[in-house]
Amino acid sequence: MTLIECIPNFSEGRRPEVIDEIGAAVASVDGVQLLDVQSDATHNRCVVTFVGHEGPIAEAAFRGIQTAAALIDLNEHEGAHPRFGAADVVPFVPLHSEHMPVCVDVAHVLARRVAVELEIPAFLYEDAARVPEHRNLAVIRGKGFEALREAIATDPARRPDEGQPRVHPTAGAVAIGARFTLIAFNVNLDSDDLELAQRIAREIRERDGGMPRVKAIGLALDDGAVQVSMNLTDYRVTSMADVVGAIGGRAAAAGVVIRESEIVGLLPQDALVQLAKSALHATSLSNAQVLEARVLDTLL
Amino acid sequence: MTLIECIPNFSEGRRPEVIDEIGAAVASVDGVQLLDVQSDATHNRCVVTFVGHEGPIAEAAFRGIQTAAALIDLNEHEGAHPRFGAADVVPFVPLHSEHMPVCVDVAHVLARRVAVELEIPAFLYEDAARVPEHRNLAVIRGKGFEALREAIATDPARRPDEGQPRVHPTAGAVAIGARFTLIAFNVNLDSDDLELAQRIAREIRERDGGMPRVKAIGLALDDGAVQVSMNLTDYRVTSMADVVGAIGGRAAAAGVVIRESEIVGLLPQDALVQLAKSALHATSLSNAQVLEARVLDTLL
Repeated sequence: MTLIECIPNFSEGRRPEVIDEIGAAVASVDGVQLLDVQSDATHNRCVVTFVGHEGPIAEAAFRGIQTAAALIDLNEHEGAHPRFGAADVVPFVPLHSEHMPVCVDVAHVLARRVAVELEIPAFLYEDAARVPEHRNLAVIRGKGFEALREAIATDPARRPDEGQPRVHPTAGAVAIGARFTLIAFNVNLDSDDLELAQRIAREIRERDGGMPRVKAIGLALDDGAVQVSMNLTDYRVTSMADVVGAIGGRAAAAGVVIRESEIVGLLPQDALVQLAKSALHATSLSNAQVLEARVLDTLL
Repeated sequence: MTLIECIPNFSEGRRPEVIDEIGAAVASVDGVQLLDVQSDATHNRCVVTFVGHEGPIAEAAFRGIQTAAALIDLNEHEGAHPRFGAADVVPFVPLHSEHMPVCVDVAHVLARRVAVELEIPAFLYEDAARVPEHRNLAVIRGKGFEALREAIATDPARRPDEGQPRVHPTAGAVAIGARFTLIAFNVNLDSDDLELAQRIAREIRERDGGMPRVKAIGLALDDGAVQVSMNLTDYRVTSMADVVGAIGGRAAAAGVVIRESEIVGLLPQDALVQLAKSALHATSLSNAQVLEARVLDTLL
């Protein structure tokens, strides 16, 4: 089973009929399951979440981009969020960690198709990046559509990975990428010592020389306890168990215990399988042994 | 999501056309996914595995029982496995531990329907049992169809829970139950000391006063190592992590470490969620936070 999640962001958060049409275009592909559509009027942006196998998911992403390009004119778009495309960002995320190469392939093929068929220049980012300078989405997008329109033909650093060096006159450009699942994970300490939580966050986060693929800050909670609030950007590199161990050890040294941890939003089954493999020494455990995965396999 | 697995056993393992027809009857229900059909000619028996929500799963089980009753005559059936019904055993298993009461309800309603519409007496077993003496399937089934045909009207202990005290002339009786998922779990020790594995198995298994819902034996593996081979009949009561801890501690006391553990066959996602809750202190983690479960929810 090569199940892939796609979570494109479109530059429309105010016209429900446009958002609905994009969602319908995505859902029109057999074998694709539309999970969620969220829009934000202030950002003037919507996020569509869907899953499917590599063939259907690429087709659904294409139809979403095509529909957005037909209905959104960036020259008339304003909103709080930076953007450079009608379909602005199209990330593919593998549900099982071993399928990242498939996501990269899907991103590459889609970028070429969008450039050729829709004449929208495409940038490949994160794990799908062909050049290291394009890995970071914020760098690719820069100051957005209006700035890219000027720079794309003249600044070599702004050349697209697929397509001609000119923005589509109304749909702009698109960033297509492959990235790993992010897990939003918080550990709450049985303490009101904010300084302790902040110190532990500094010690464990990658930015300050801590654990790789960990972003962390220390926070005070409303109930008086303190929290180490994290994003784990690759649980294969640093897992939830790893950070619980690191935080628990540092807290214990200060005489504090972990009260509880919490996972915010969704996590892939694979993260639980990895955890079980580690906790149980179950080296051969695979995602295919999970009954729900077997059921999904018969359905998708 | 109230996803339920049903794994009925039918008394037919030799006529493929009959087995196919039973499978087709089950699969004919919208919302039911047929996962597997396995037959055994020696046992003259087949096992059908399917999943669905409470309404569809009950309808599919009914159609399977109805089809088996129409095509199988126990008076002409012989095989190595004990049996008392054309549809012999129909267990419902909750994919999420909190849905056992739903499985019990489904079993009760189905038993009544089978008794009334098909005139097959039904026994309710394990968690669906109405009387403690019926919990154990082996006790209910006794010496099978021929013995029950004589005893059902005269022996109060053999009276069915639903229907008249007479077997169906060709389809016999049926045992309908609700039970928990069993996890087949082995822990291999980095040692050739079979006596150690056997001693640990005795110490941890319920039968000898060990951990509840644990069956265990000690075995020698082909590669020279030894194994504690287990069935965990309720991972909510005793989890994989619990037995790994118990085995690891006892092995360590003898100077032996765990080489690896292995899960045989399938396990429910819920077992992984429970493990994560325990390992991470993630008290609020729910099955609904797993991306795959969310996808399944949109499909079933």
